[in-house]
Amino acid sequence: MELVPRVLGGDRRALARLISFIEDDGPAARAALAALYPHTGRAHIVGVTGAPGTGKSTLVNELAKALRAQSRSVGIVAVDPTSPFTGGALLGDRVRMRDLAGDPGIFIRSMATRGSLGGLAQTTGDVVKVLDAAGFEVVLVETVGVGQAEVDVARTAHTTVVVEAPGLGDEVQALKAGLLEIADVLVVNKADRPGAGQTARALEVTLDLGRNNRGEGDWRPPILKTVALDGTGVEEVLGAVADHRAYLRESGLWDRREQERVRVDLVRMLERELVGRLVERVGEDALEGWVEQIVARKVDVYTAVQTILKADPAGERAMSS
Amino acid sequence: MELVPRVLGGDRRALARLISFIEDDGPAARAALAALYPHTGRAHIVGVTGAPGTGKSTLVNELAKALRAQSRSVGIVAVDPTSPFTGGALLGDRVRMRDLAGDPGIFIRSMATRGSLGGLAQTTGDVVKVLDAAGFEVVLVETVGVGQAEVDVARTAHTTVVVEAPGLGDEVQALKAGLLEIADVLVVNKADRPGAGQTARALEVTLDLGRNNRGEGDWRPPILKTVALDGTGVEEVLGAVADHRAYLRESGLWDRREQERVRVDLVRMLERELVGRLVERVGEDALEGWVEQIVARKVDVYTAVQTILKADPAGERAMSS
Repeated sequence: MELVPRVLGGDRRALARLISFIEDDGPAARAALAALYPHTGRAHIVGVTGAPGTGKSTLVNELAKALRAQSRSVGIVAVDPTSPFTGGALLGDRVRMRDLAGDPGIFIRSMATRGSLGGLAQTTGDVVKVLDAAGFEVVLVETVGVGQAEVDVARTAHTTVVVEAPGLGDEVQALKAGLLEIADVLVVNKADRPGAGQTARALEVTLDLGRNNRGEGDWRPPILKTVALDGTGVEEVLGAVADHRAYLRESGLWDRREQERVRVDLVRMLERELVGRLVERVGEDALEGWVEQIVARKVDVYTAVQTILKADPAGERAMSS
Repeated sequence: MELVPRVLGGDRRALARLISFIEDDGPAARAALAALYPHTGRAHIVGVTGAPGTGKSTLVNELAKALRAQSRSVGIVAVDPTSPFTGGALLGDRVRMRDLAGDPGIFIRSMATRGSLGGLAQTTGDVVKVLDAAGFEVVLVETVGVGQAEVDVARTAHTTVVVEAPGLGDEVQALKAGLLEIADVLVVNKADRPGAGQTARALEVTLDLGRNNRGEGDWRPPILKTVALDGTGVEEVLGAVADHRAYLRESGLWDRREQERVRVDLVRMLERELVGRLVERVGEDALEGWVEQIVARKVDVYTAVQTILKADPAGERAMSS
């Protein structure tokens, strides 16, 4: 695919086109990803996640601006929960672009969360790889900190920044509690609001209670206060992110997190490929026939799966081998 | 498995034990699900979803109480996003139980969202099947309306109730917008708060703009106001849910939604089974070897998948057949 050398050469239009290919998920996209893969592994992948209302999008934009001020190139992948339905992703891109437009050292992409279960994580991971190969030094992956797939996406970053804010409702507080344990850096945003000190102290206590369970090494997540709207504290967050990167490198955890991500990726791709091949062999009509029989309660889905795989020539051979 | 006849006979202790088996996902669980399956298909599965802070848990509890007042049995499956980390699910169960305890016509289970991608939807679907087979007339599935997996779970219900509330922040509003299109019944909860009328009117306008795209038939989601805390409007919500059920039955959409759910279920189980068998044939050590090679950028994951499947005896036979 001719796009690949252009992406590697820094062509931003080619980059945007390639990412669109990847979202459409054709075989050409996979060939391109294979060709790009040897060029990956250099970017620092930073997940930024938090409950609705914490202001994490603003923080991500400010982090990007601060990185640009250090002449470091930044890719942003925003996983936008509104977009499966409303096209909010495109709108979001446009609003963000106003602020950061025209700078070739920055690239922003909002991901729709449409598609099948697990599709979100797969596509987000692929887009991160492309930005990594394209030479972006930092890739910020922004997800809302609610939802299994969304939290999983943040968790596979090298460094996960969890954003909190004072004065959110009880239910939001509860959601945030679940995020604490994947945090490498904790940010109390909107720190000019009443209750910010209290929120930070509550986080300290929670950390003391050992609720952070990535369970690796002896990194204690720093708790930093920001007012993303005017940029206060953003430099310090970047500093903590850089410290965490150094820590990962020195402790060998960098490699462990890479291995974890690759393992998940490999299994997911095997699943997809195996089912794709099975559907080709068995035929969509035959599978639809099974669906109808299951709906009619003539067979249950568990028995259907065993029967389909037993009748499948590949499956049969495997069992007898 | 001896638990199955006991569950079918109404034994609640056996039911709780069986659900624990299913969450642990052993082969015995699958045999039990197969045995229970012919007894499913009678429950009305109602998804209740909404952004954090809308009060949907309170509404679910009130709906359950109102159903009990009509002598209808109710199962509740609450998908709790805090629980992968904090054990919030168990706590939630206990809090809820206080209100509804000791009534054999009601059964509540909070689901942890731990586990692999897609695991949430799988396990939730299985637990719903068990409650259906156990004879519960209505199964309420409560999920937070953020996150791909969580929204998918709500979407596979027969009837999806989307809960809104006035006065939530901008970001929460945006999240809610994405939920509108899967709504069969819209509820403005906390209707005693300022702005409730405005929220309801905004929903009307959105519906007029055709933002509801389940795209089936001519059902227009009613917009109802509730104050779940004191039970105001809860009867009307139940009425709308019953109307929607009648509509699904008369229009034939009931069967279409069943088919959709079964199709997703079948593919997901085939995926899991195929990968499980592949791992057995190839061996975990060999796969771990591939992971290391991919991490070292000696091979990309796409090429690795093709190579693994080509070397797999079952895969080779399939390609040559």
